[in-house]
Amino acid sequence: MTESLRPDSVIDDAATVTGIVKAAMAGTQNPRLKEIVDALVEHGHAFLKHVRLTDAEFEQGLAFVRAVGQACNDRHNEVVLLADVLGFSTLVALMNNADASTRTPGALLGPFYRGGSPEYENGESIACEDSPGAPLFVHARVLDTSGRPVADATVDVWQASPVGLYENQDESQPEHNLRGRFRTGADGALSFRSVRPAGYPVPTDGPVGALLAAQQRHPYRPAHLHFAIFAEGHATLVSQVFADDSEHLDTDVVFGVNRRLIGQFEQHAAGTGPHEDQRDAYYTLDFDFILAEGTPTYPTPPIQ
Amino acid sequence: MTESLRPDSVIDDAATVTGIVKAAMAGTQNPRLKEIVDALVEHGHAFLKHVRLTDAEFEQGLAFVRAVGQACNDRHNEVVLLADVLGFSTLVALMNNADASTRTPGALLGPFYRGGSPEYENGESIACEDSPGAPLFVHARVLDTSGRPVADATVDVWQASPVGLYENQDESQPEHNLRGRFRTGADGALSFRSVRPAGYPVPTDGPVGALLAAQQRHPYRPAHLHFAIFAEGHATLVSQVFADDSEHLDTDVVFGVNRRLIGQFEQHAAGTGPHEDQRDAYYTLDFDFILAEGTPTYPTPPIQ
Repeated sequence: MTESLRPDSVIDDAATVTGIVKAAMAGTQNPRLKEIVDALVEHGHAFLKHVRLTDAEFEQGLAFVRAVGQACNDRHNEVVLLADVLGFSTLVALMNNADASTRTPGALLGPFYRGGSPEYENGESIACEDSPGAPLFVHARVLDTSGRPVADATVDVWQASPVGLYENQDESQPEHNLRGRFRTGADGALSFRSVRPAGYPVPTDGPVGALLAAQQRHPYRPAHLHFAIFAEGHATLVSQVFADDSEHLDTDVVFGVNRRLIGQFEQHAAGTGPHEDQRDAYYTLDFDFILAEGTPTYPTPPIQ
Repeated sequence: MTESLRPDSVIDDAATVTGIVKAAMAGTQNPRLKEIVDALVEHGHAFLKHVRLTDAEFEQGLAFVRAVGQACNDRHNEVVLLADVLGFSTLVALMNNADASTRTPGALLGPFYRGGSPEYENGESIACEDSPGAPLFVHARVLDTSGRPVADATVDVWQASPVGLYENQDESQPEHNLRGRFRTGADGALSFRSVRPAGYPVPTDGPVGALLAAQQRHPYRPAHLHFAIFAEGHATLVSQVFADDSEHLDTDVVFGVNRRLIGQFEQHAAGTGPHEDQRDAYYTLDFDFILAEGTPTYPTPPIQ
């Protein structure tokens, strides 16, 4: 039996492993799956060789991955968090928004997207009554690459509270607070009222938090609003708009900040500016989103 | 604020991401951790770019990693299994047994190592009384690279049953069945009685099983015994010895088979051969392990 072994089927040294593994996977029926796992094996093996990982380090690495998986639950995805803090998520978002010279760049979806947000009319508030925090009036336009308004676009908005928590992290907020879905008018515009979001730390009680601590990195994201924009004839845009006066704008722990995604959060004293009926100081944000032609795809467009 | 952003701190396209992530991790205090995570980011980003992973594929990939982590429990480690079927574990084992030209190559530790096996005298049986299966008599020698016997080596042995299950997978076996720890004599030899192990499928009820199915790969390992050998003045050897007449010897699902780790499982009719008092047909296995000079390290040497 020993003599009958195919010479390419038994592994005698580290140099031959990658080819033998790829040969074993050659029967993969889905060609895209084959391409992806082949590349994963090539790059994964190259990583292991590059650092000459020891047995003990390998065991520690596998235990880390296990702990990351086990830290996931209905309200938290530590795997997404790991991908975020290593820049994987931002890289994927940017790759799939290539040629962003004429349109708005994408940004990572993040773990707090829920879909199915409440529908609102333009001008309504996505913040519950008596919500703490400085009022924020958002006026946005959805345009195509020629500058023409995109009417009837669905715009899904979600954001953290003035203390930096999404509603599904925070028992003090009602269900779907600070989430809403709007539709652009003939002028491509949408508008809503909210409260100014705060920047926040990503969760640090899991293994990814321990990694950040070992790397001497702070866990903060600058203040931002999330947008997902769906329109017939246009590629879906998943992006974020960052407050220009926010802390940590140049050290976002998940690398989401793109210069072109920084919005001017303009502060107005009570009784002044476009909403002069306000009794407290408030902010306004004006932002234009530019969509590329294409087909609405990911994430699955909300039911309309 | 926008103007004061450091030009290298805000990500404007996919080409700049990797450098910015590495810069963010530059404060890592442990230099080895820094080296490893830097390389992980480089190779991980290279993988994502190589296959131009789409947003939806990225989401599927993260969900797969999450499912792998969540499939782990006290008796099963799906993360190790994934590393095994992608050849990562074998590559690490071989890298850390470089220069195996004069000594016995290592093989992956596998998920069934427990340590703390019962101590036995040479010649005793690691199989419980009335164990089903063909008797197997193992005689092994532990030698140094000059061929001199290594006395007083601790040899930890573990194996699957004749139906391919380790005792901690199988309620019909007593605790620590088919596991034992031996000590070599002045002649470097150890010997024990057991039953012939069967090859077995790796667990296929988790996400890794689904991957194997999509790759049209069978889930089997050929029949083998595990050995971990610890001796003063020598590098620990973690290895496996495969039955030369086993099925799947050239398609081990975890790529553990090395030509030099194939042992001759010699079959004897009842009443013949070196154990002619046997009333049933039986097997003998003779195998020499050659240790390199070094320090016993991984896995942690058992308490002696």
